[in-house]
Amino acid sequence: MTADQLTRPSDAFASAAERLLHRCDVLGGFSALSDGILRAYLTPEHAKANAQVAEWMEEAGMSTWQDAVGNQWGRYEGIEADAKTLVLGSHLDTVPYAGRYDGILGVLAAVELVADLHGRGERLPFAIEIVGFCDEEGTRFGATLIGSKALAGQWNDDWMQLQDDDGISMWSALQAFGLDPHNVRDAALNPDQLLGFWEIHIEQGPVLESLDLPVGVVTGIAGARRANIRLTGQAGHAGTTPMHLRRDALVGAAEVALAVEEIAKRAGGDIVATVGQLFARPGAVNVIAGGAMLSLDVRSQSDDERDRVLEEINDATETIAARRNLDMMWEWQHSAGAVLCDDGFQAVFAQAIADEDIIAQHLPSGAGHDAMAVAEITPMAMLFLRSPRGLSHHPDEAVIEDDVAITLSVMARALKALAST
Amino acid sequence: MTADQLTRPSDAFASAAERLLHRCDVLGGFSALSDGILRAYLTPEHAKANAQVAEWMEEAGMSTWQDAVGNQWGRYEGIEADAKTLVLGSHLDTVPYAGRYDGILGVLAAVELVADLHGRGERLPFAIEIVGFCDEEGTRFGATLIGSKALAGQWNDDWMQLQDDDGISMWSALQAFGLDPHNVRDAALNPDQLLGFWEIHIEQGPVLESLDLPVGVVTGIAGARRANIRLTGQAGHAGTTPMHLRRDALVGAAEVALAVEEIAKRAGGDIVATVGQLFARPGAVNVIAGGAMLSLDVRSQSDDERDRVLEEINDATETIAARRNLDMMWEWQHSAGAVLCDDGFQAVFAQAIADEDIIAQHLPSGAGHDAMAVAEITPMAMLFLRSPRGLSHHPDEAVIEDDVAITLSVMARALKALAST
Repeated sequence: MTADQLTRPSDAFASAAERLLHRCDVLGGFSALSDGILRAYLTPEHAKANAQVAEWMEEAGMSTWQDAVGNQWGRYEGIEADAKTLVLGSHLDTVPYAGRYDGILGVLAAVELVADLHGRGERLPFAIEIVGFCDEEGTRFGATLIGSKALAGQWNDDWMQLQDDDGISMWSALQAFGLDPHNVRDAALNPDQLLGFWEIHIEQGPVLESLDLPVGVVTGIAGARRANIRLTGQAGHAGTTPMHLRRDALVGAAEVALAVEEIAKRAGGDIVATVGQLFARPGAVNVIAGGAMLSLDVRSQSDDERDRVLEEINDATETIAARRNLDMMWEWQHSAGAVLCDDGFQAVFAQAIADEDIIAQHLPSGAGHDAMAVAEITPMAMLFLRSPRGLSHHPDEAVIEDDVAITLSVMARALKALAST
Repeated sequence: MTADQLTRPSDAFASAAERLLHRCDVLGGFSALSDGILRAYLTPEHAKANAQVAEWMEEAGMSTWQDAVGNQWGRYEGIEADAKTLVLGSHLDTVPYAGRYDGILGVLAAVELVADLHGRGERLPFAIEIVGFCDEEGTRFGATLIGSKALAGQWNDDWMQLQDDDGISMWSALQAFGLDPHNVRDAALNPDQLLGFWEIHIEQGPVLESLDLPVGVVTGIAGARRANIRLTGQAGHAGTTPMHLRRDALVGAAEVALAVEEIAKRAGGDIVATVGQLFARPGAVNVIAGGAMLSLDVRSQSDDERDRVLEEINDATETIAARRNLDMMWEWQHSAGAVLCDDGFQAVFAQAIADEDIIAQHLPSGAGHDAMAVAEITPMAMLFLRSPRGLSHHPDEAVIEDDVAITLSVMARALKALAST
């Protein structure tokens, strides 16, 4: 027997992984676009995806229902009827021209885990509920995490007035979908009945791939702050203004962008800082820019560390602006605090990974997820799956089938471990 | 008698300066705009300005005519009828929402110099011709230096097909203006009859103001090369891509922009290098830029020095791109060689300035001027006049009346000096 022929623990989930990926393809067909995937909140595609997922949940031995805001649910009872519930899930909606796995894979992986229990006639000391969230991406109305916030009792009535591109309000869309807008708060769960929330998700980043690892334990979801930094100097003729008499806002902004990178690298840890936009005014080949704007996005799992880095960036920008005789203005755009994953759950996941003879890598999530919202009412944890080329929100988004089998094997171990505590 | 009451040499031209500025205001009224100045080639405003300038030329004792492309001319005979000719002048056209002095002041200053000779009944050993060029700015058809190139025998037949915003070709516009497009080459001068070309112009830059000097001797007109530099990295999620796994094209472009500034400053001399445009792709707050483009404009009076600086910038960009794992591409856009002012004329101007008890400052011109084109057929020289705040191509473009009087006094001395050689 050669090493290639060794039976690995995850081989038990090989056919489940294959079916899961096939199901991702099937859901990809429920789209508003003919040449790509788009599944937005309260659309016919949303209804079809819910119905299809409900069918698969029922095949896995679950009872199913759609809640008051359009989340799809399935329940697999525990050994005792009034046992507490572990919720597993992710979202079923997509961005325009999406891939097939962002969100969707987490819901269908949970279905496979329950199908595995159901196939062996096994019940756990707790019930498992699977949720397919109705709107995480905010594609139709702009508001994000609608499904998970509703579940966490954080429905925002202002959302009702939001309109889609056709001028249809969320209120009208709920009615057209067959839901009663008066009842949206019924989607909130009772925290007392919950054990926790687990979300499986593709990484949407390059870290696991760079480490050659199939899965990783998420430590938390980064908090983010965003600002626009405006610099004002003096426009001038590119030919007639000597270098030493310039107040060039573009070169000033360039120096700030480099400082942002340098400060974030020096800070280390999970700090990421990005200048994704840089606009110069007037923006002509032969005119020294009199004005410039750059966007800043800083994230960390530690709000304190993030704010310390922002302060350092602010100091550096002030120094640069003063030295270059530029005026500086910061406009704050957005601020969200970090949310940490439950330590106990992280330990369970890490042990399950180690039991597969895989290094249990911990990593932060720089992107937002439904688990952020659910964390308001119950401890949460996330398992990341390697994203080839870090690609997401793109038709070429991919997963490796073997990684999916490993994910299922790891999470089956984790359920077993939780059951035995 | 206090210092304030001392008679300065330029006081003799105080009323001429006042009249000159009044005439600039009058010409500013010949505009296609109701709320600003716009005088483009072959328009009714062009015809009116030519007619008005011709009237002033005639008052100064000159014979006048309009040439085959629409330049306005005046001639003040020398002592002998067949004497060689010194041409003085600049352009009478404007950009949209222009100031009152760019070009215009040079034409009207020449008229004042002749008026001064005429008033005193003085003739020189050479004839003076004044030209008001019809199109330096290229406002209507895009092609620049039309009037001066026609004079230098460099009319380009391709221009005839150029169309303005209303779809009118230059050919049709010449006819509508009353000119015969077949005859445009008649505007070319015979170099054998020329002594040289002198152009008085506002600096359009901050150098003289920063030195607290009213006038300066132009050493030459800088050559310029322009390129777009494209950098390609890898787009990525601003939250999920750690700093060390990024191939951020925007930060790469920022580093190049800073290198351009640093190399130009280090090169010293008259080198100017400008990044006026920087575009990031996709240019979103939460996406690491996968692509970036920056414009580069490098000018110097020495083509060799300019090209050496460009090579240094190219090397620096290559190093930056390699270190950041970015692809780099240069697209050359434009190249024009430097044109030097005649040494003998520069010495005449410098002596004339010194004779006013003013430091004779030499400075390069980073902007293009009609004198560039005329230099093809005869030695040329330029005198710059201080531009308050370096402002030009702007309604607030200004000159100081006393500087105008000094300019007239300096140039009257220069004419006298040339007459005595």
